[in-house]
Amino acid sequence: MVDTTWRPASADPELACPIAPVVDIVFSRWTTPILWALHEYGRQRFVELERRIGAITPKVLTQRLRRLERDGMVTRTYHAEVPPRVEYEITALGRSLAPLFAGLAEWGAAHLDEVRGARDAYDADPARPRP
Amino acid sequence: MVDTTWRPASADPELACPIAPVVDIVFSRWTTPILWALHEYGRQRFVELERRIGAITPKVLTQRLRRLERDGMVTRTYHAEVPPRVEYEITALGRSLAPLFAGLAEWGAAHLDEVRGARDAYDADPARPRP
Repeated sequence: MVDTTWRPASADPELACPIAPVVDIVFSRWTTPILWALHEYGRQRFVELERRIGAITPKVLTQRLRRLERDGMVTRTYHAEVPPRVEYEITALGRSLAPLFAGLAEWGAAHLDEVRGARDAYDADPARPRP
Repeated sequence: MVDTTWRPASADPELACPIAPVVDIVFSRWTTPILWALHEYGRQRFVELERRIGAITPKVLTQRLRRLERDGMVTRTYHAEVPPRVEYEITALGRSLAPLFAGLAEWGAAHLDEVRGARDAYDADPARPRP
């Protein structure tokens, strides 16, 4: 069983909420598109990932890949060819996120219209403070 | 069925990954502890939320609550008493996230040790670049 007991006031949001550590690992900016691309398209080179993800800069992609490698989500393989070739692949640990990602995608498909409707209603009401 | 078709390179991470819009709504910093506290403890006043969440500043808590209200996740009720009383409550839309949060908590319980082990191994290897 998951311990969902409330943690009392703390200096760290990680301790105030049992899912915060997962959120920090998995849901930082650009992390989900990278894992998604590696999950959907298998092992690939840096330039392929870069092209698939789009607006990400090489510097940020490098940083995010290092962090994912450190977290055990991604492996990096260096092929000593001329020119050298580096490939990235999602690990079994990274793949274990697939059901969560599917759950998030389903929640979005079911509820994002409702969120957009709530935003429109809020923004149309001059009495509501601007967020 | 959820459309999980890969979107090609785009200027916006939201478009590069079908779960990115959900992540933006639900998993920004402090958002999950707020929703969690409202889900677990029901309707409550600002000061109660503040005490439960801990290190959050009143300014940030106000901002996050407004955004959650705008997104349809939270309702704010103003009681015209002396002194005035304001209460916050999670909506049905907010509660619809509960299975996702449970899934994240379970993933954390099953895999966070593995993530920590991967980090220790990475950090112990001087050949790995610092992330």
